[in-house]
Amino acid sequence: MDKPNAPPPGEPLTLRRVAIDTYRENVAYLHRDCAVYRAEGFQALSKVEVRADGVRILAVLNVVDDSVIVTEHQLGLSEQAYTQLGLQEGAPITIDHAEPPRSMDAVRRKMLGERLTAADLHAIAFEIADHRYSKMEMAAFLVASAQAGLDRDEVLHLTRAMVDSGDRLDWQEPLVADKHCIGGIPGNRSSMLVVPIVAAHGMLIPKTSSRAITSPAGTADTMEVLAEVNLAPERLRDIVRHHRGCLAWGGTARLAPVDDVLISVERPLGIDAPGQMVASILAKKLAAGSTHLLIDIPVGPTAKVRHMREALQLRKLFEYVGDRLGLHIEVVITDGRQPIGRGIGPLLEARDVMQVLENHPQAPADLRQKALRLAGRVLEFDPDVRGGQGFAIARDILDSGRALAKMNALIDAQSRRTPAPQLGTISYEVGAEQSGVVTAIDNFLLARIARMAGAPMDKGAGVDLLKKLGDTVEQGEPLYRVYAEFNADFKFARAFNAEHGSGYRIGTADEVPKLYVEF
Amino acid sequence: MDKPNAPPPGEPLTLRRVAIDTYRENVAYLHRDCAVYRAEGFQALSKVEVRADGVRILAVLNVVDDSVIVTEHQLGLSEQAYTQLGLQEGAPITIDHAEPPRSMDAVRRKMLGERLTAADLHAIAFEIADHRYSKMEMAAFLVASAQAGLDRDEVLHLTRAMVDSGDRLDWQEPLVADKHCIGGIPGNRSSMLVVPIVAAHGMLIPKTSSRAITSPAGTADTMEVLAEVNLAPERLRDIVRHHRGCLAWGGTARLAPVDDVLISVERPLGIDAPGQMVASILAKKLAAGSTHLLIDIPVGPTAKVRHMREALQLRKLFEYVGDRLGLHIEVVITDGRQPIGRGIGPLLEARDVMQVLENHPQAPADLRQKALRLAGRVLEFDPDVRGGQGFAIARDILDSGRALAKMNALIDAQSRRTPAPQLGTISYEVGAEQSGVVTAIDNFLLARIARMAGAPMDKGAGVDLLKKLGDTVEQGEPLYRVYAEFNADFKFARAFNAEHGSGYRIGTADEVPKLYVEF
Repeated sequence: MDKPNAPPPGEPLTLRRVAIDTYRENVAYLHRDCAVYRAEGFQALSKVEVRADGVRILAVLNVVDDSVIVTEHQLGLSEQAYTQLGLQEGAPITIDHAEPPRSMDAVRRKMLGERLTAADLHAIAFEIADHRYSKMEMAAFLVASAQAGLDRDEVLHLTRAMVDSGDRLDWQEPLVADKHCIGGIPGNRSSMLVVPIVAAHGMLIPKTSSRAITSPAGTADTMEVLAEVNLAPERLRDIVRHHRGCLAWGGTARLAPVDDVLISVERPLGIDAPGQMVASILAKKLAAGSTHLLIDIPVGPTAKVRHMREALQLRKLFEYVGDRLGLHIEVVITDGRQPIGRGIGPLLEARDVMQVLENHPQAPADLRQKALRLAGRVLEFDPDVRGGQGFAIARDILDSGRALAKMNALIDAQSRRTPAPQLGTISYEVGAEQSGVVTAIDNFLLARIARMAGAPMDKGAGVDLLKKLGDTVEQGEPLYRVYAEFNADFKFARAFNAEHGSGYRIGTADEVPKLYVEF
Repeated sequence: MDKPNAPPPGEPLTLRRVAIDTYRENVAYLHRDCAVYRAEGFQALSKVEVRADGVRILAVLNVVDDSVIVTEHQLGLSEQAYTQLGLQEGAPITIDHAEPPRSMDAVRRKMLGERLTAADLHAIAFEIADHRYSKMEMAAFLVASAQAGLDRDEVLHLTRAMVDSGDRLDWQEPLVADKHCIGGIPGNRSSMLVVPIVAAHGMLIPKTSSRAITSPAGTADTMEVLAEVNLAPERLRDIVRHHRGCLAWGGTARLAPVDDVLISVERPLGIDAPGQMVASILAKKLAAGSTHLLIDIPVGPTAKVRHMREALQLRKLFEYVGDRLGLHIEVVITDGRQPIGRGIGPLLEARDVMQVLENHPQAPADLRQKALRLAGRVLEFDPDVRGGQGFAIARDILDSGRALAKMNALIDAQSRRTPAPQLGTISYEVGAEQSGVVTAIDNFLLARIARMAGAPMDKGAGVDLLKKLGDTVEQGEPLYRVYAEFNADFKFARAFNAEHGSGYRIGTADEVPKLYVEF
């Protein structure tokens, strides 16, 4: 006897694209009356394998009771899943229970506190890259690793596995430089200065950056104020070959894709174990073809790294893994006590960057200084640059206008954005609650306000700092101005300020925390 | 300036029901052009809070590009979310970012190996009950707890918190009995015998059971062959009051709902830490109003618990927590070397149960014996029953036909199912690969075959065992018969058998594993 409703199990369904965006999670839609659904004992949310003509993807099942979405002869796929499968609507398709990933066995051993081998971590990375892991299973891996801890060899194996499970660029040059900041400091757009300086010197620096996820602006969001950042791989290669650098968004390449997937789980869980962070950063850089890497670790009371000993441990771990993977690594520990520059938000940060490049009298000195120091260290990767001379070379490139010329060349090559976005038209100022000296600025709170005001989605939204650490203020004097493009965002940000205060602490000059680091 | 497209952020959207079943996960659908989506910087898969007129639920966001599903003025909710919100289509509704659960802080402390307090576990349970946890976040809690381990006081606190975060039944009687098996043994339907025996004695035993999730039949699936099991709470109460017992599905009540949610994460991850299992079982029983509980722990080479020392540790943990929560607990360790009875699958197991109740000459002796022993122990909860006399009383109730009469009364009270489901019409036999004595039967493999054949969805599908441990067989003699209702399932099961063998081991009489436990 065969079941009612065609097609019987095992017979293919036809593919349908369902216009639902499920981000990094593939979803398959099956009608409740579909014979296959009934026969296989599927349950909503179970993991299924969708196959057609040599390709297969994994997805989570949703069961549909409305034939407008899918009929009982169709299998629907969400946007991402549809794209990933790469077939046309109407193509014949079969669906089956997905086996749990084999490497979950290693994850369970990690839960028991075992040290994982290179083979274990290789299997985990490849199965994640193959979409065999659900978010729950990834959470299990990440929590088990964070809890039991990854020793430095495990970090090394994980890094290598993450690189091996994706594509890898080869620039065919002996020196491919990059810089990376571990993040957490608003306004910290030094990459947009380091790249033109270093590229103007002639060193290859094909910088790809992320968009903001929890911050009010990533380098990609900020560069996007000035130029196109979403570049096809061939175009990117041409620009880099011609200009020795670029400032593009790294999201389109399949470089260490496991990293992106893991980050989408780490972030909401608030897991930031050092081992995973180091593997994540180094895997991306290796996959991007970097040979020389400068890592920036800001330290401060509201930075990601709050103590010097933590920064030092992290530095050793970067060095250990980098050395073994043939990456030349330098780690610098920097001032993370307050935001860098004045602007927080894409347009305001782009303004700061351009002021520094233009040697504008109002250019924020801290951003200029930090960028020159970082660029100087990168320049010293060049065997022909004498140790200690990098800073002076960088300053010369900046002061002479060569960095600005290079930046303009990059902007034009990537396609200049016209008309430029405008600053938000609605604004309010936050004033000092008392008179005194600024003794603390909460990085986290300022970033939060800039986001509520609309950054990074609204390019012109953000926060413009009028006072920084050590500045004297009178009661009521404005500390910063908040810009929004839309009324609702304006109200949100303002209400947040009213509830949580300015994020500034005002006291006496001797309460300003000492800068206990500088590279 | 306000954003394009009405309604502006903050203005309500209208509610729409989207006929997609997303099981335990609430999904909200928002059109990509919806002003709120654009304004709030939502991202697909972010967690949102949906509010209307005094009610609110949490959901995961999916972004829609097809106005057939939702328009830019609507907020769609998946079936479960729609039901949970409890409003009509068209109702005004607002949506906002959901804050991460506050108790994730305690989860992060658990990741660091800390011991959690009663207050921590209370907060976690209540936020899970309130749907504030995503699956990832629950996975983080479960993995962290399994890895760092829950000490017995943490298990106690978790159990209490799980009970407190749901409804709790009160039967207004001093002795409310229940029994529970930790599972893993196919065919083990002793509850369907214990309940009529104990209820016939006059002891209150309002048994609610689960449906099968990974097994080929749960007690609820099997009882459903005979009668309705999905009973409204008031009807259930009436039946219990009148008949002193019931055999119903427990899924509809809001008893320890956290348990159901956690199980939906534990199972796919293969986490079965003893602490979580004990808290899960005891919370459900306490919420159901039980005062006296018999726990059955089968031990055997392919059972859930494989070693006596493990069974003993588990027993101590049950006793510790039960004692402190005022539950009278007895734990029995039983023979888990092979399936109980002959049938595996709802109809075949119901047949075995009825044969025992009818004192049928072919009734499976092992099922009868086990049920009598368990019922005897439950009867001894009665202060008037002398220690050691329970078995004889149970046997008397069974042999006299009083248990059968009680079962028929329960079936009629719950609504007898007519016509009764039929045995699958397609079958094949699996024969012995060699002559000898049956020395092992793989519980897991037999359960798997019964599921592939269609159990528990197809009531008449399953496996009928013709040989058990210690039986002598000739080469080619049938070991068991597999029944399916549909051709496709028949082929699946058969192919699985061809690949993985019969699941029986044939050897010599002295290789039959000793029964090293019996209560």
